[in-house]
Amino acid sequence: MQALSPSRRLRRTPFSDGVEAAGVSAYTVYNHMLLPTVFRSVEEDYRHLKDAVQVWDVACERQIELRGPDAGRLMQMLTPRDLRGMLPGQCYYVPIVDETGGMLNDPVAVKIAEDRWWISIADSDLLYWVKGIAYGYRLDVLVDEPDVSPLAVQGPKAEDLMAAVFGDAIRSVRFFRFGKFPFQGRDLVIARSGYSKQGGFEIYVEGGDIGMPLWHALFEAGAAMDVRAGCPNLIERVESGLLSYGNDMTDDNTPHECGLGKFCDTWTAIGCIGRDALLRVAKEGPVQQIRAISIDGPKVPICDRHWPLMANDKPVGRVSSAAWSPDFNTNVAIGMVRMTHWDPDTKLTVLTPEGQRDATVRESFWN
Amino acid sequence: MQALSPSRRLRRTPFSDGVEAAGVSAYTVYNHMLLPTVFRSVEEDYRHLKDAVQVWDVACERQIELRGPDAGRLMQMLTPRDLRGMLPGQCYYVPIVDETGGMLNDPVAVKIAEDRWWISIADSDLLYWVKGIAYGYRLDVLVDEPDVSPLAVQGPKAEDLMAAVFGDAIRSVRFFRFGKFPFQGRDLVIARSGYSKQGGFEIYVEGGDIGMPLWHALFEAGAAMDVRAGCPNLIERVESGLLSYGNDMTDDNTPHECGLGKFCDTWTAIGCIGRDALLRVAKEGPVQQIRAISIDGPKVPICDRHWPLMANDKPVGRVSSAAWSPDFNTNVAIGMVRMTHWDPDTKLTVLTPEGQRDATVRESFWN
Repeated sequence: MQALSPSRRLRRTPFSDGVEAAGVSAYTVYNHMLLPTVFRSVEEDYRHLKDAVQVWDVACERQIELRGPDAGRLMQMLTPRDLRGMLPGQCYYVPIVDETGGMLNDPVAVKIAEDRWWISIADSDLLYWVKGIAYGYRLDVLVDEPDVSPLAVQGPKAEDLMAAVFGDAIRSVRFFRFGKFPFQGRDLVIARSGYSKQGGFEIYVEGGDIGMPLWHALFEAGAAMDVRAGCPNLIERVESGLLSYGNDMTDDNTPHECGLGKFCDTWTAIGCIGRDALLRVAKEGPVQQIRAISIDGPKVPICDRHWPLMANDKPVGRVSSAAWSPDFNTNVAIGMVRMTHWDPDTKLTVLTPEGQRDATVRESFWN
Repeated sequence: MQALSPSRRLRRTPFSDGVEAAGVSAYTVYNHMLLPTVFRSVEEDYRHLKDAVQVWDVACERQIELRGPDAGRLMQMLTPRDLRGMLPGQCYYVPIVDETGGMLNDPVAVKIAEDRWWISIADSDLLYWVKGIAYGYRLDVLVDEPDVSPLAVQGPKAEDLMAAVFGDAIRSVRFFRFGKFPFQGRDLVIARSGYSKQGGFEIYVEGGDIGMPLWHALFEAGAAMDVRAGCPNLIERVESGLLSYGNDMTDDNTPHECGLGKFCDTWTAIGCIGRDALLRVAKEGPVQQIRAISIDGPKVPICDRHWPLMANDKPVGRVSSAAWSPDFNTNVAIGMVRMTHWDPDTKLTVLTPEGQRDATVRESFWN
């Protein structure tokens, strides 16, 4: 692996000092910010995430704040998910689409109040699209990035650790709901959510100055629980079928291709910019779709480009994420497969840079 | 330095195979793509850039294509530079601003034809802003990313190398103009431009499939000129006062603060979205501005965060880029300084992570 050259342009986070003291060994860049990818090793970090509890610097999930009388209208313009029933205190996973139905991002929308939303974004400058639409439509809404940095606590002991810092009331926060909890005199939005299937929370740290105090509080409270610094783990996320924008889908793909049709209420999401295009897709169905793929043989190399999926020497899709899974004793992968070959148990061949392998389409992901 | 974790999300370029074979030792991530930062060492790459000729993979300067009857109108909406006199065959450096006059990018606009433009972007997803504006205003224009990957040839011997591959006609291309030159049956847009002050060209490689054939052709033709793979060089760009979006300025800054007022024809750029805000700035002038700063003492550490600039223990600005310059025997830096302290020869103190240093505001950059 090559080194990553530091520069001001790759923004540090309020937690970077803690991440470095904890011995981060590799980064990726996400929304122009540093996102840790490895501490001890991907495999060791994986084991620990599934057994204990980790604190993740995910400040790179930069927020977009919508505020004002048109905030709700603008939010609905961005997504085909019907937001009418959404209440303050809820979080929704919302595919964001352009006028062709192509995905621009797949963030979590946090409804703070009727006229105030945060969008916790994946890796693209969604702020530019939202500002452009708000300006073009002359909406009465302020669109900006607030000083809010998410910090995730993930793993089976996450609830115990959070309760030790924020009190037992945190245990009653339901999945994809949030509550407000005090820390050093500030009320922080804390949601039960996160980019793993091991359970946990995301703390929307408002004000970078309390980033390191909170980091230290979590590590002090979690010492007996073997808390460690961690990060989204490649193996665990692929096992869990958690898609990664830019890896598994881009603006070329509709939500339906990504298996996100259940988040598209295309008939009722009146005002959604991509609605016309998606009505067509919803009616006819996609011709390719994301699938869980198992790949035979020993540990695959790092998947840093599309690997073609072949059937009878013809391309029928591509793998975009892959890793060796110690728990399932196979290579787990995420791929886009054409409808002719997407049925469970279909046997395919995948072309990796280190040669071809047998692969099988699965019914579902592993976790 | 930490490692950079490879993934599909950090897109490779048509030239990545060549870059790796040439022994790239560090990358940054730019527009979600790999951008080499170091081959042998920053110092050795610098010496070679100033003495010979280098081929740079700058495919990360991703293109936005505007095409259709409203292409020119949309282009003028994006920038305060007056585009009325611009002819096909010209390239303009164009600050791009939002409705508050904040800079969203500082790309080069390439006018291919009256109804067709390419925008060769710096590090932000400008495509999202342009698509949002085009959609919001219902403009008759297609906005998309074409399969065009810039490859730069930079250094004092760049013209000789380019002439060896494309013929002597290349020598008559003037600064920030382009011509079309054939390569393997395709006509490529080639401009005299680039992110150094050593002279050179940028080849807009249309079609990723001819990326490596062109790479090899340049290295074969340049063998006697000591051609090497290179990349934008931190030392040379700071000496030359070449700003870096995300490092030296962000959407917090107006073009005037960045010393780019000469590219703002705010009175006549009718239709520019940020015109109202910038008329105010143009009238009153900015209260802080980019300056060349020299920093005393031995080689400074890597500038991966803002370093405060102080006068009498009060903050008066910040340094955003810095490097040791072998040719000028000092640390060269780019900083934003308040008007109270921006006059040449003003003595300041800069707070680096390794302690404070004496610094001096300069009249101009070094190259």
